[in-house]
Amino acid sequence: MSKQRELKHKKAMQKQKASVDASIAKASEERGVAVLLTGDGKGKSSSAFGMVMRALGYNQRVGVVQFIKGVILSGEEMYLRKHCPEVEFHQMGTGFTWDTQDRSSDIEAAERTWTIAKKMLSNPELDLVILDELTYMLSFDYLNQDEVLEAISQRPFEQSVVVTGRGGGKALQEIMDTVSEVKEIKHAYKAGIKARHGVDY
Amino acid sequence: MSKQRELKHKKAMQKQKASVDASIAKASEERGVAVLLTGDGKGKSSSAFGMVMRALGYNQRVGVVQFIKGVILSGEEMYLRKHCPEVEFHQMGTGFTWDTQDRSSDIEAAERTWTIAKKMLSNPELDLVILDELTYMLSFDYLNQDEVLEAISQRPFEQSVVVTGRGGGKALQEIMDTVSEVKEIKHAYKAGIKARHGVDY
Repeated sequence: MSKQRELKHKKAMQKQKASVDASIAKASEERGVAVLLTGDGKGKSSSAFGMVMRALGYNQRVGVVQFIKGVILSGEEMYLRKHCPEVEFHQMGTGFTWDTQDRSSDIEAAERTWTIAKKMLSNPELDLVILDELTYMLSFDYLNQDEVLEAISQRPFEQSVVVTGRGGGKALQEIMDTVSEVKEIKHAYKAGIKARHGVDY
Repeated sequence: MSKQRELKHKKAMQKQKASVDASIAKASEERGVAVLLTGDGKGKSSSAFGMVMRALGYNQRVGVVQFIKGVILSGEEMYLRKHCPEVEFHQMGTGFTWDTQDRSSDIEAAERTWTIAKKMLSNPELDLVILDELTYMLSFDYLNQDEVLEAISQRPFEQSVVVTGRGGGKALQEIMDTVSEVKEIKHAYKAGIKARHGVDY
């Protein structure tokens, strides 16, 4: 590698570091953040559970509510129930929409589950609350949007919250601090590869 | 809610379920999958660590290599080192590009780290291998792209691999089974909110 390239690289890196440093210095408000992971691609729920691991690394207190899940027991559920009894874990369970195909009982299940989520969102002892696949409850009009957005906005100052799921609407995006859209470029199952335990569930 | 809406909902859900069922039935190949999480948004590394949690839920064996990390100890590192000594965890450490600003020593660090990653990618006892922020090693031309792509492609049949990081190039995307682009819609730090432990690191 030439001396010139080495120098050019060093200058580019210094510039990049200066820009990153400036952004970090400017960001000065310390509080819990609200993160939305939306879009049609793979990685939304798994990202939420990665943040659970991060929070547990700092011995933070974590609450998890899963609004829609299939019948198969997921890896994250098995792990948390077995190894992390300190995590408040709740699953909507019987309310799985695509299986029950019954709007009334789905709404009842959603509302029961929301009661638990709302309690977490008002508990200042919880550092992180995961509302996995909550967006569908809003898209299907199972929960009152105003009530959900208010509970998220009014949560304790230090508490972070992560919401996952496709869609969710503009109003939800507006109240969140960080919004990532996970876009599917390609997905294994479309090439005939089965969903994989330990990766997909 | 009207009876008509109830019926309409039920029909829509049945149609959706039939379509999902058909896709699942068609996907019949069982093997490890290669997942790429790319794009400029928040959620790539956390998604990889969520999959680590999933895999551990099934008592799978996991290897993790982090190619670029800052000086702050991350939540996922603290968690894995403390609670999951069975996970093979390796960090490039000294090679953090934006801090060292030295191309030669970065390349050395990258190559040392790659040696460890390559060993994991040839170990059939590992069910899941995470190559966190590997893409930068390719973008910066620190590692030989052909060698990296070959090692990923030639890994054991049952092993899944997750690669994270912005960019990475077309050739990498082509050999991966699932590719998600995590797009930043907005990010808290741009609104002046500090990176949050337990969420951002």
